[in-house]
Amino acid sequence: MHGYEDNKDDLLKRLRRAEGQVRGIARMVEDDKYCIDILTQVSAATKALETVALSLLSDHLGHCVAEATAQGGPVAQEKIREANEAIARLVRS
Amino acid sequence: MHGYEDNKDDLLKRLRRAEGQVRGIARMVEDDKYCIDILTQVSAATKALETVALSLLSDHLGHCVAEATAQGGPVAQEKIREANEAIARLVRS
Amino acid sequence: MHGYEDNKDDLLKRLRRAEGQVRGIARMVEDDKYCIDILTQVSAATKALETVALSLLSDHLGHCVAEATAQGGPVAQEKIREANEAIARLVRS
Amino acid sequence: MHGYEDNKDDLLKRLRRAEGQVRGIARMVEDDKYCIDILTQVSAATKALETVALSLLSDHLGHCVAEATAQGGPVAQEKIREANEAIARLVRS
Repeated sequence: MHGYEDNKDDLLKRLRRAEGQVRGIARMVEDDKYCIDILTQVSAATKALETVALSLLSDHLGHCVAEATAQGGPVAQEKIREANEAIARLVRS
Repeated sequence: MHGYEDNKDDLLKRLRRAEGQVRGIARMVEDDKYCIDILTQVSAATKALETVALSLLSDHLGHCVAEATAQGGPVAQEKIREANEAIARLVRS
Repeated sequence: MHGYEDNKDDLLKRLRRAEGQVRGIARMVEDDKYCIDILTQVSAATKALETVALSLLSDHLGHCVAEATAQGGPVAQEKIREANEAIARLVRS
Repeated sequence: MHGYEDNKDDLLKRLRRAEGQVRGIARMVEDDKYCIDILTQVSAATKALETVALSLLSDHLGHCVAEATAQGGPVAQEKIREANEAIARLVRS
């Protein structure tokens, strides 16, 4: 069981919505909608994915990383290393 | 017809792929995959959407904005204002 | 003369302030201030630089790119290519 | 003493460099340098600040948050909440 267990329904709801947003963007392209209107939707979908990522990260820090650091040792260090890499990818994406 | 006309197939291919990525992320959540692995996929999907946005923006500047600025006057200023707002949303999302 | 000529004073004021913010962050590190408080200031300085970038880009599109596209031809294409690369760097930094 | 104690010299070196970069950008504006060249430097300075932030965050998670979670209870939860807010600010700046 992972940290996001309690938030699973909310995550799945957000991901369904984001999937629908991306599908909607494709339809806008097919229907030759105006570039700026499409860009507005792409920014919205990107933000939606960021919210999912921040929620996952928050649960991960609060559960998986917290449990590992309570044990200490190499397991904890590996969890923190992983979390830092995930944060760097998020900041730079 | 908009600036992205010549790139429509590429845009649609990227958007299909991004849609599939988001659907895949939902499946990972359903299947209780490890948080960090899911976060890696969310960063990849965010990057894919950014590439779509930059491609759309590039076509928009090269066609819609260029044509408007060739005419000059309020139409040009409006196109540039719109483009600047879209860029700001992208930078801040 | 470049597009930002009319905004030069505002840009210089913002850059002075950002420079002061970065100097202030260094002082916080020297004074062993709390990590989270320092991180808050780093986010503020990053946002300040983004505002400078968006202002420069807006002036560039409204003047240098607009003038070039009014002439058309390879000069215009080069200006648009350059602008797109600068936007991509901004979105990905 | 905070998590970044061992990295203080590196942080200060990076911050001095970033401060010099911002001062250099102001000089470019004063000297009427080309917009795109200035934008390139702004992206570089923004990236430099992001590297400082990621380094601070990494030390914070590895020390302050790890120590707090080893104790558990409300202190740990507050540290994790703070860390999540700092990460969100970074992702969205």
